[in-house]
Amino acid sequence: MNSQEFREAAKAAIDDITKYYDNVGSQKVLSTVTPGYLRPLLPASAPAKGESWEAIHADIESKILPGITHWASPKFMAFFPCSSSFPAALGEMYSNTFSGAHFNWICSPAVTELETIVMDWLAQAFGLPECYLSGGSTHGGGVIHGSASEAILTVMCAARDKYLAAVTKDLPDGEEKEETLWTYRSKLVALGSAGSHSSTKKAAQVLGVRFAAIPVTEEEGFSLTGAAVSKTVADLRSRGLHPFYLTATMGTTDVCAVDDFAGIAEALAPTFNTSQDIWVHVDAAYAGSALLLEENQTLTPPMARFHSFNFNPHKWLLTTFDCSAVWVRRRAWLIEALSIKPPYLRNQFSDNELVTDYRDWQIPLGRRFRSLKLWFVLRSYGIEGLQNHIRNGVALGESLQAKIESRPDLFTVFTPARFGLVTLRVKGADEDEINARTEALYESVNGTGEFYLTSTVVNGKFAIRVCTGVERVREEHVQQLFDVFVARTKINVNGKQ
Amino acid sequence: MNSQEFREAAKAAIDDITKYYDNVGSQKVLSTVTPGYLRPLLPASAPAKGESWEAIHADIESKILPGITHWASPKFMAFFPCSSSFPAALGEMYSNTFSGAHFNWICSPAVTELETIVMDWLAQAFGLPECYLSGGSTHGGGVIHGSASEAILTVMCAARDKYLAAVTKDLPDGEEKEETLWTYRSKLVALGSAGSHSSTKKAAQVLGVRFAAIPVTEEEGFSLTGAAVSKTVADLRSRGLHPFYLTATMGTTDVCAVDDFAGIAEALAPTFNTSQDIWVHVDAAYAGSALLLEENQTLTPPMARFHSFNFNPHKWLLTTFDCSAVWVRRRAWLIEALSIKPPYLRNQFSDNELVTDYRDWQIPLGRRFRSLKLWFVLRSYGIEGLQNHIRNGVALGESLQAKIESRPDLFTVFTPARFGLVTLRVKGADEDEINARTEALYESVNGTGEFYLTSTVVNGKFAIRVCTGVERVREEHVQQLFDVFVARTKINVNGKQ
Repeated sequence: MNSQEFREAAKAAIDDITKYYDNVGSQKVLSTVTPGYLRPLLPASAPAKGESWEAIHADIESKILPGITHWASPKFMAFFPCSSSFPAALGEMYSNTFSGAHFNWICSPAVTELETIVMDWLAQAFGLPECYLSGGSTHGGGVIHGSASEAILTVMCAARDKYLAAVTKDLPDGEEKEETLWTYRSKLVALGSAGSHSSTKKAAQVLGVRFAAIPVTEEEGFSLTGAAVSKTVADLRSRGLHPFYLTATMGTTDVCAVDDFAGIAEALAPTFNTSQDIWVHVDAAYAGSALLLEENQTLTPPMARFHSFNFNPHKWLLTTFDCSAVWVRRRAWLIEALSIKPPYLRNQFSDNELVTDYRDWQIPLGRRFRSLKLWFVLRSYGIEGLQNHIRNGVALGESLQAKIESRPDLFTVFTPARFGLVTLRVKGADEDEINARTEALYESVNGTGEFYLTSTVVNGKFAIRVCTGVERVREEHVQQLFDVFVARTKINVNGKQ
Repeated sequence: MNSQEFREAAKAAIDDITKYYDNVGSQKVLSTVTPGYLRPLLPASAPAKGESWEAIHADIESKILPGITHWASPKFMAFFPCSSSFPAALGEMYSNTFSGAHFNWICSPAVTELETIVMDWLAQAFGLPECYLSGGSTHGGGVIHGSASEAILTVMCAARDKYLAAVTKDLPDGEEKEETLWTYRSKLVALGSAGSHSSTKKAAQVLGVRFAAIPVTEEEGFSLTGAAVSKTVADLRSRGLHPFYLTATMGTTDVCAVDDFAGIAEALAPTFNTSQDIWVHVDAAYAGSALLLEENQTLTPPMARFHSFNFNPHKWLLTTFDCSAVWVRRRAWLIEALSIKPPYLRNQFSDNELVTDYRDWQIPLGRRFRSLKLWFVLRSYGIEGLQNHIRNGVALGESLQAKIESRPDLFTVFTPARFGLVTLRVKGADEDEINARTEALYESVNGTGEFYLTSTVVNGKFAIRVCTGVERVREEHVQQLFDVFVARTKINVNGKQ
């Protein structure tokens, strides 16, 4: 393909893509192919000779599109959104043009420098404590990872190394210190709540450290409390174990609960800045975007006592996957855990510490130019445009909650609208019937292919999750969904009677 | 930005991008900005109101481009290439349109299924043993990760868990087993050669296991031998340690050495399929693409006895960053180490094991639709087109080697052309002078900004690396570089006399 052929193919692709977004709301949201659909449609091996773009292009519509679930659809209310937008699409086009491994400053100075600046812009817009700014008093700063899982693994790794270094700092180097280190390693415990995303448990599994989930209760809105943290920490310590890390969550995946940051900060205050400092990471992967709204910024002051924070602009902030924004209060914690400097990565600017080498803030060496799309999104929407988008999701969640509450004969709100996530259950005589009816409604709605929802089971209770965070969701879609809920519940319940 | 505005902006962007590629050869390859150049050019915070695309677009040329190092330039002979191509650019455009988190099959069936198919196509085209095919006899298969660092961390994690499970399999569950597991953990050693990429050491550091580098010698072409592996393994075991993992390399970063796979397989044969099975991973991040050439496929038969293999299509195979292809001989090894299944990720197809859930083959949960660009590249170039591209890089490396050998008065070839990488040194009276003169030449060539090279230090010897793998490199660029070498060496040497 020469550059003229590319120009023509790419411009036609832009027409395709624009048309896709214009029509995505009228497609069935969920792919209806069956497992294994694609293999019979494709040759058994790669072609020996190059094929024309015409042939390749035709296969996108005929073979790929049927296997796509439309995350941009206003009928997509499953999981959390994974959004895209026109400015982000433009960002990706340029970012891919400037393709490179970008593992240090000289690989493309703009990639490093724009990232630092855009992460500072976001930290300010979120009202994060100044310790997370690149020029802040504690030498913190932000970095863009690919996913919250990667962010959590990375900060947990840094937390582990920081803890081990602190508890053994008075021992002279040598075999005895080595033995002591291994003893500590065997007693480390990473903590989350029962509502923490599975990535915390997975990170502990990868690092080979123990994991403990602190219980949360329905009475407390599934929010992790300082009292529960204190109790678990004391209990683990009494058994000779060493809790070294905690994921606190803003917007759990199940029900969008927000942990009690102030209470947790209070509970862990006796450990902070001691050799047994417990690293607190705030995982705000989805709901973090709502910190753009001033009314939510009351959540951020306790974070000044915590260690790190992340949210995914690719979830609710209209920035194409992947883009996970992570901040730490002290960047040296990451660098001490993750830096490796072989000769072929040395260069004058890095050696003189004039520049940030983000490869030492993450697990992979290479890095995509992700800040470009984030910069385009922030500039094209402006903070006010993004606030309007977030408010739209929040308001639609509240609208759905009101509708559910209007039919107490059929439904109960399991957890109220929080950041555009509502969970609900169908009425029934007892927990078993409620679970069965709720699951039947869930299967039945997804079975139509008209809306895509996910479910969860919290403390034995089956609930349907509805998330209204996708950019194209409007009141009419929420109304349609509610009408489907009512109609399907009646069919299901009557069918069973 | 509405869809009509996007259509216009994106079509103009396509013109920009085409023009960029048409002219990239005539730009200075290395960015010449100084550290901190960007911050004074940008506002201190994100704009409150949205800005026009016109304003954003203007900043790409005026503020971003000066900070870009041009990895697509034919004067880029540093590191290894990180290539892009027109079909890959089209792949990214569609992939970003179908943006989603894609962590399981139903998220978009095409994302999972195309990945399996394309990875099988590549395994076949590379002549990898059938155990790496998704339908192979050992239930192996391929997955696309973001980077080789991620691939190596992932397989090392799986290797660790496999080893620990095997050595403790006869113990009943309980406290004693737990204690024994911790004792084993404290004695695990991950191995690489002195030429292995730093990502192996970094993975060990992240996992909190020991790392040992097995020496390689200039006489053996810096290739890791079976004898050296045997010696290190025996030595570690005699000290009560447990080597559990080895990175063997096809194309080391320093000098593109190829480890002796057959010798290593022979040396480790006594451990294979025992409870002390040492997992062998082949890291072919850059040079793996050369397995498309039949003459290199003699390297693959020993891999049938190894455990995993990865190469980065984003390096030499014209697929935009990021795209790292990883295969394992038995997929259960990954799944056993990495699977986590909370309720909100459950779905009918996964529960029935009808589909592949690639989230259990990797560290992150979410995944980009990376197979699309790889599919476009394989089809648009065809295997023959890609072979021609690889042969071009190989031949240009050989051409440079011949030129260097034509001036034995000035230069020595340090390591011969292998997969388009040549390393060289300047002549001198002794090692110190050789090192000093070679470093001076290196600094001097990079100082012109006309070519971008990297250097390395192997066993105390400073050498200049020249890699001819970028797609646009032609004989004229190699000749120009050689002319610069000759001219600058004369200036440097005369200047010092």
